[in-house]
Amino acid sequence: MATKVQITSKFWTRYRQLVRTEMIPYQWKVLNDIAGITIEKERLNDEGIPSEKSHAIENFKIAAKRAKGTHYGWTFQDSDVYKWLEAVAYSLREKMDPQLNDKALEVIDLIADAQEDDGYLDTFYSILGIEHRYQSLAGSHELYCMGHFIEAAVAYFEATENEKVLTVAKKAADNVDANFGSEEGKIHGYDGHEEIEIGLLRLYHVTGEERYLNLAKYFLMERGKHPDFFREQAAKYNGPDALKGIEKSPDTYFQNHKPILEQDTAEGHAVRVVYMCTALADLAYSTGDKELYAACVRLWDDITKRRMYITGGIGSTVIGESFTLDYDLPNDTMYCETCAAIGLIFFAKQMLKIEAKAEYAEVMERALYNCALAGMALDGKHFFYVNPLQVDPKKSKKDPTKSHVKPVRPSWLGCACCPPNLARLIASLDDYVYTINGDSILINQYIASSTAIEDAGTIKVEQITDYPWDDSVSIRIENNCDHDKKIGVRIPGWADGYRLTVNGKEEDAILSEGYAYIDVARKSKVIIDLYLEVSIKRYYANTAVSEDVGKVAIGRGPFIYCLEGVDNGEYLNSISLPKDAKLTYKWTGDLLNGVGVIEGKAKRAASRDTSLYSTIRPDTSDVDIKFIPYYAWANRGENEMQVWVREWEA
Amino acid sequence: MATKVQITSKFWTRYRQLVRTEMIPYQWKVLNDIAGITIEKERLNDEGIPSEKSHAIENFKIAAKRAKGTHYGWTFQDSDVYKWLEAVAYSLREKMDPQLNDKALEVIDLIADAQEDDGYLDTFYSILGIEHRYQSLAGSHELYCMGHFIEAAVAYFEATENEKVLTVAKKAADNVDANFGSEEGKIHGYDGHEEIEIGLLRLYHVTGEERYLNLAKYFLMERGKHPDFFREQAAKYNGPDALKGIEKSPDTYFQNHKPILEQDTAEGHAVRVVYMCTALADLAYSTGDKELYAACVRLWDDITKRRMYITGGIGSTVIGESFTLDYDLPNDTMYCETCAAIGLIFFAKQMLKIEAKAEYAEVMERALYNCALAGMALDGKHFFYVNPLQVDPKKSKKDPTKSHVKPVRPSWLGCACCPPNLARLIASLDDYVYTINGDSILINQYIASSTAIEDAGTIKVEQITDYPWDDSVSIRIENNCDHDKKIGVRIPGWADGYRLTVNGKEEDAILSEGYAYIDVARKSKVIIDLYLEVSIKRYYANTAVSEDVGKVAIGRGPFIYCLEGVDNGEYLNSISLPKDAKLTYKWTGDLLNGVGVIEGKAKRAASRDTSLYSTIRPDTSDVDIKFIPYYAWANRGENEMQVWVREWEA
Repeated sequence: MATKVQITSKFWTRYRQLVRTEMIPYQWKVLNDIAGITIEKERLNDEGIPSEKSHAIENFKIAAKRAKGTHYGWTFQDSDVYKWLEAVAYSLREKMDPQLNDKALEVIDLIADAQEDDGYLDTFYSILGIEHRYQSLAGSHELYCMGHFIEAAVAYFEATENEKVLTVAKKAADNVDANFGSEEGKIHGYDGHEEIEIGLLRLYHVTGEERYLNLAKYFLMERGKHPDFFREQAAKYNGPDALKGIEKSPDTYFQNHKPILEQDTAEGHAVRVVYMCTALADLAYSTGDKELYAACVRLWDDITKRRMYITGGIGSTVIGESFTLDYDLPNDTMYCETCAAIGLIFFAKQMLKIEAKAEYAEVMERALYNCALAGMALDGKHFFYVNPLQVDPKKSKKDPTKSHVKPVRPSWLGCACCPPNLARLIASLDDYVYTINGDSILINQYIASSTAIEDAGTIKVEQITDYPWDDSVSIRIENNCDHDKKIGVRIPGWADGYRLTVNGKEEDAILSEGYAYIDVARKSKVIIDLYLEVSIKRYYANTAVSEDVGKVAIGRGPFIYCLEGVDNGEYLNSISLPKDAKLTYKWTGDLLNGVGVIEGKAKRAASRDTSLYSTIRPDTSDVDIKFIPYYAWANRGENEMQVWVREWEA
Repeated sequence: MATKVQITSKFWTRYRQLVRTEMIPYQWKVLNDIAGITIEKERLNDEGIPSEKSHAIENFKIAAKRAKGTHYGWTFQDSDVYKWLEAVAYSLREKMDPQLNDKALEVIDLIADAQEDDGYLDTFYSILGIEHRYQSLAGSHELYCMGHFIEAAVAYFEATENEKVLTVAKKAADNVDANFGSEEGKIHGYDGHEEIEIGLLRLYHVTGEERYLNLAKYFLMERGKHPDFFREQAAKYNGPDALKGIEKSPDTYFQNHKPILEQDTAEGHAVRVVYMCTALADLAYSTGDKELYAACVRLWDDITKRRMYITGGIGSTVIGESFTLDYDLPNDTMYCETCAAIGLIFFAKQMLKIEAKAEYAEVMERALYNCALAGMALDGKHFFYVNPLQVDPKKSKKDPTKSHVKPVRPSWLGCACCPPNLARLIASLDDYVYTINGDSILINQYIASSTAIEDAGTIKVEQITDYPWDDSVSIRIENNCDHDKKIGVRIPGWADGYRLTVNGKEEDAILSEGYAYIDVARKSKVIIDLYLEVSIKRYYANTAVSEDVGKVAIGRGPFIYCLEGVDNGEYLNSISLPKDAKLTYKWTGDLLNGVGVIEGKAKRAASRDTSLYSTIRPDTSDVDIKFIPYYAWANRGENEMQVWVREWEA
């Protein structure tokens, strides 16, 4: 049941155009080392990263014997090409572009040429020593890269029906299948970074080949059963350096501390966790296995109910880019990687397929409109890896504890995981709008768009709205199918109330797990109008979150807001918001491509002199403050930013 | 003008006895690897440290050819022996102990045997390759170790008049002098870790030999003139691994970014900075050079007026154990090393010799009674390196960003810098009570004690007080000198007021830079009684310190107070102290060896349920709270602790 959603949303069309006109062409140049970028050391996203150039396409050319040379870059450099190809696939699905498609076909040919005869696909080992393949999985990222290729291949096949790409993908998956599994003589292991599992399940969905599902299941169930696996491999390994020493990371870093089904808490590298969960949820969905789903729910709950920033960001520490513990959410030293928020969106999407709970769609929305979108500048050319909730540029520069927390987005450099991940997310946003759940069509995201769902006939669904800036959505349904349908209209948890009309008449639909279900009889047309009561919200963190006690975060609709220095001056933490302060929402079309801002009167504390400690209480004075949506911060130069604001108790 | 102060203070006598009865004997066993300590990996102060054993004495035996084997431990392992010897020297000065002295003499003989014929003294290179000496100064700590030896030698000589130890020290200093300096053929460089400068100046003071002063001056003035020095040495070095790679640290780490006289801010490794400043201030004092003193004042001001925690702790980040930038004082991720607070006390002591400003004595007092003392458990057997202002044991265990911040003091293990540094500070505390400034005797610290100062006759000074727990001090002076004297009575900045009587009569002495000067005519006796008005203080940090805005720290007298979980429950940051809350001071003799506690009524915020974010404001309820002095925290098991407490604005 292929769904193609034509997105017309003004908000999202701008971003999707940026992907087409800026990100994809620019990344093409980067991958081919023709972007002409000069990378000064201090602008590198991370020191020590081999990122003076990409060399990614060149690696493929060398592996394909079309060029001479050696491998350059990370062990996972190939995945940059695959994520580009995946974004291109979604872009072509939206709108065919023959020139772009030629580039994609060229890349697919190159990948096919670089593939070993037995299906193995990884330029690092093809160039540096194929005899060492699969022997250093803690850091080699071989299966991770193949997983990304398979995802790209499936996306490209679905967009173009190109068989060649699917053949290459199946051949790669077959090589993995031949080398890994519980059978004697196979490797009883898995990749340090989950991803192959996602790819294999997508390949299963498109081919129906159960072997791929079983292999994904093998990887997931094997993980954590034998925590010494990576160290044992490393002790014997004598091949090219594949992130040597990474095997010494805590087992939790790899989610390798115990079997997944026994994991109650989200541990280790946050991106890996949510990639693992995405696959686990797809497996639970694909098999209908309740135990698997229960494991997903346990991890979902731990992530979203105890370890998630209010922006949808995850990963409380830069060390290992990891989760830490429940309710530990420091605002200015965390990681909150863009990719982790994106992975959480992937996870939510899979969960929605299993159970129609608006909670999943709401976390998806929170991560999408806040942490993930903040990963990208409004110009589509600059990107954050780390998405803090509080930053002071002075500290980013001079306090090494905070040096990973950048106050402005660097441009997309040689090696990059987050920008292409954002590109593929935004380009495939149509896949996140609806979930088909039996006879129900769940509307998860309010995004102006139209689609035609084939299901023994066609059901057309159109959303007319200016959401996220508008509070109402008109949903036009034309059910030409042979059977009745239900439309699950998500009622956001942040709405104070709502009104639903069906064909102009008030409808008192029963809410179930956050969805209001409206019947749409076969061969009928229905217009559903949803009016949301949206107000400015004051959010409080649980008092177990020590960093946020006594503070308030401001939100409106799907957006979390923040204070920025450019609007509010220096020393943002000296601002406190009286608990009864009136806050006003105002649409500002000429600011930051059009945003709703929130204004109010607050207090500002200021010491009388420069003395470091004093028995004299700082004076407070009234001050006008302005909040902007979090996603739009750091688009007006380098300045302070803060989400959680002290609340004035009086 | 040797000063011997017999300390009778109940507060300090306990600590000084611990040094004699616990620390010195225990460290002797550790140094000789007969302490029988079994060190489990997780109890190590720091992973990766070679600290399964000390081997320090064994290294000397091997270097002295009394034993076979190779060097074990850090490049600076020798300094453990020297700091032990220095503490022993002060202990013997206080009270001769023939058995202990025999051990000291034994160690001095061993050191003399380990010394090379040309005076070079460092077991690491003597054992591993003398031909590589002085070639890797970024990490070798050769001069650092020799500096500690010289300090110990001077202290031992002053305590016992043993000439041998001084001969060894001069021979070592002469070797350094022969190898370093501006002359052609000498090394134009210095040690990565300042300390030799302090030792050389002490040697100058005891011998009067100007060469040692000039050499100290050379090291101080050369530093930072050629920031590539360490990297150039490292590029050529092929000797044993002396902290290889440390030369890649930022130049600031070594205070090597520019000449010291041009340094306006305290940069890099905090202990190194204050050791450098201690020597610089001694040099300024010894030479009367105003420019040097101005440089000291610039660094003093930056450290104490913009970069110091209210506990007297310094070093805002664990990365490089370093200073960061002005007003950057995070409470739960910093370093605040015990040794750095001790070094700040050294610096203050030198500054007092130059200028009679109570500010120096007050910072000394703050660091002594708070950060430094907190480095040691009440049992004298457990020690902190890191002295946080806020800790949650759960986070120390599971958030790697905070793993260096321990919630309980580990026991003194194989290798240790802070415990022996505390031992020598406490054992030599008599040196911190008074400063002789021309005809004035400044009383810097109120510590019950008696002393006889020789200065063309004797002037006896006795302090009778229960300070720090008592608010009055009776000072009895007997001036048997041939000339009049002034006594500078320090009026602490934290006193609300004071009353001074001289021989029972009210005295309205003029205050100058925090000292009230009382004349004591020659051949006269005077009793000065100082009555301080002491109250509970609410301290506010400058609003530029973002971490502390809206918070208050409680102090009384020299002590900063803190909340501990054992008294106040979990989630200490959910407590807020109303700004007009009445706080009561109460002496509690049976708690923590006797402390004054501060009690009051506060508010506690508590979320209604476990949800992570909510639009419902947490409820607040009244709660009784109890503060204890910061130095005494973590003596009742593992629990939360917090110095800065949110202030309730109402």
